[in-house]
Amino acid sequence: MALIVQKYGGTSVASPERIKDVAKRVLATKQAGQDVVVVVSAMAGETNRLVSLAEQISDSPDERERDVLLASGEQVAASLLALAIRDLGQTARSFLAHQVRIETDKAYGKARIKSIDSTRVLQSLKDGEIVVVAGFQGVDEEDNITTLGRGGSDTSAVAVAAVLNAGVCEIYTDVEGVFTTDPDVCPAARKLDRISYEEMIEMASTGAKVLQIRSVELAMKFSVPVHIRSSFSQAQGTWLVEEDQTMDSVLVSGVTYDKDEAKITILRVPDRPGLAAQIFSPIAEANIVVDMIIQNASEDGTTDLTFTVPKADYKKAIALVENMANAIQAKGVTVDPGIAKVSIVGVGMRTHAGVAAKMFQVLSRAGINIQMISTSEIKISVVIEEKSTERAVRVLHEAFIEKQGNL
Amino acid sequence: MALIVQKYGGTSVASPERIKDVAKRVLATKQAGQDVVVVVSAMAGETNRLVSLAEQISDSPDERERDVLLASGEQVAASLLALAIRDLGQTARSFLAHQVRIETDKAYGKARIKSIDSTRVLQSLKDGEIVVVAGFQGVDEEDNITTLGRGGSDTSAVAVAAVLNAGVCEIYTDVEGVFTTDPDVCPAARKLDRISYEEMIEMASTGAKVLQIRSVELAMKFSVPVHIRSSFSQAQGTWLVEEDQTMDSVLVSGVTYDKDEAKITILRVPDRPGLAAQIFSPIAEANIVVDMIIQNASEDGTTDLTFTVPKADYKKAIALVENMANAIQAKGVTVDPGIAKVSIVGVGMRTHAGVAAKMFQVLSRAGINIQMISTSEIKISVVIEEKSTERAVRVLHEAFIEKQGNL
Repeated sequence: MALIVQKYGGTSVASPERIKDVAKRVLATKQAGQDVVVVVSAMAGETNRLVSLAEQISDSPDERERDVLLASGEQVAASLLALAIRDLGQTARSFLAHQVRIETDKAYGKARIKSIDSTRVLQSLKDGEIVVVAGFQGVDEEDNITTLGRGGSDTSAVAVAAVLNAGVCEIYTDVEGVFTTDPDVCPAARKLDRISYEEMIEMASTGAKVLQIRSVELAMKFSVPVHIRSSFSQAQGTWLVEEDQTMDSVLVSGVTYDKDEAKITILRVPDRPGLAAQIFSPIAEANIVVDMIIQNASEDGTTDLTFTVPKADYKKAIALVENMANAIQAKGVTVDPGIAKVSIVGVGMRTHAGVAAKMFQVLSRAGINIQMISTSEIKISVVIEEKSTERAVRVLHEAFIEKQGNL
Repeated sequence: MALIVQKYGGTSVASPERIKDVAKRVLATKQAGQDVVVVVSAMAGETNRLVSLAEQISDSPDERERDVLLASGEQVAASLLALAIRDLGQTARSFLAHQVRIETDKAYGKARIKSIDSTRVLQSLKDGEIVVVAGFQGVDEEDNITTLGRGGSDTSAVAVAAVLNAGVCEIYTDVEGVFTTDPDVCPAARKLDRISYEEMIEMASTGAKVLQIRSVELAMKFSVPVHIRSSFSQAQGTWLVEEDQTMDSVLVSGVTYDKDEAKITILRVPDRPGLAAQIFSPIAEANIVVDMIIQNASEDGTTDLTFTVPKADYKKAIALVENMANAIQAKGVTVDPGIAKVSIVGVGMRTHAGVAAKMFQVLSRAGINIQMISTSEIKISVVIEEKSTERAVRVLHEAFIEKQGNL
């Protein structure tokens, strides 16, 4: 029997009524002759409620205990969905991370899945049950509870689909699919029918919130077909697939933005080998992900080193960096949380020159100053001042997507 | 180092502020030189909120999934308390049932603890940590989540205290201790300084809500000294101890009542051997606890069989009983949810005759009709109409406790 994995996000299970709707959809899939494994997020608002409880108790909540707290949200949603399916007369069974051993590393709050034991899931499917797995959560090798970070349920779903060799992993969400850019910012945005794994990775890593980036990496690694679609309609959404020839003709598939980073500059770093490693090692050890890095050499043989970190880790990073700046005798540290990263993404860039130049021109004409630049084979990102974000997105969308081919 | 187990109920951890207060109290105990293991209930109102979610989804929620749902409440409270203790600078660690293997049988919603693996708790204590254990929850041998029933955290605490051979198990609650009767019903009620395990079992099983009865049975079995006290003051509460000579002089220690039962009568049951077993087996198999049973022989060789069950199981019981009544050719079934059980409890009854007679006399003078009677060595219970409950409690408290010794 074909196997399908369906993942429902927080808005899809926001209330008992919506959970019942999800149960009906799941049951319809089962009755159409497929085995179904469902992965659920916490009910919308629940994770925020739990975070707020933790913050009322501690300014810097211990990460292990925070994960124990947050994992309860998916536990509630999973059991309620199993209840709802059973109420329709179909046997169903919920599983938490420790029950199907979704084993992760020990990075609380952003753990990575190492393995899943499919034994109990397969037995449950064999018994004719619909399986409901709590998303977002894992356990480390000592059975401590971990969580996978924001959007982690997507990764849970793709990992489960990969382990079970599912025919498709459907990601149900509150939007119709992946859009060329954020429709709230740019009304001309339109839904994409297909997008390659690589483009999706770049879009997710540059601000598109529709999927957790690790879930796309996993999907690409194990060639899991992913269908991103709305839980409120039957419309086809966006398929995540292998790149093919026809995609090359499209120069830019999407314009993304990210306001969740902050910029830190270490002034006048002495130009000695090994200093970069010395600066970034403690940041990495604190599990802070550094995104863009640039160096500007000064005339006096020192270097200004600028990089961006998630706003959530901003204060922790500054404390580490200020210590470090002292130790290496740099001249000081400046910080700027008022920035945004705007990016264009497309596999067509591989075979077309001049895309970067056109991007800089478009922004320049709009009077938007570029502070940092970072490129990959299929993506160009720039850091600009935060308040110009929406305007930058609209002019880039107009130039590259609404009028594409006019390079 | 001496070890103390402290259990905090839902009202003691009802808000972030109260959780911080509990953390301070726990830390003070630790700083006084004792190892501390804390067992917590869900925040007040949380279990009801979860039950309501389940009921919005299903009229008869699957019991396995309901336990997965409800167990999340204690998970939240345990992690928040560990966070609060850590915020005071003391290392602390929460454990869920699957992490310390609080293994139970499979009776979802009212599971019994079979064993606890103390390895991780002992290691954590050795590391100088305060240990926080989620109450109310367990896992069966297949790692399915179970819950211990209303008040189950008391039982978790006493079981943990027994396994760890703790010096005392402190049960923190929102009242000052165990009272001679419900102060809301009878203003003359007073706090008891000490009470024997056996009396406490009878009081709990006849309606005193202060402790889950299984927790007292466990405490008696393993001779765990239990101290029931208020989390809002430093006052001494009530100690649960072995019975001793001085207790004999007190005829009645407490007056209790229970409005949570319903009465079912099967009319004209043919008088054949084995019929009682045939009637009660399916009820037992449905995990419904039958409390009082009486038979009234009729003149025609048949018997009217009357018994009480918890109101929560009332509808389930009626369905079973009606089936059964047909099968054994009884004449019908009558039901009465409008009853209450009122009891007097005291080890002094062992050595004094005439207590029952006086009880019936006191009720008769107050014009209260007795429908059923049940006695043990240290307890007399009567079933009366529900609306006379409070009056019955007051006249019995006056006769036996305010004026005791006047038999």
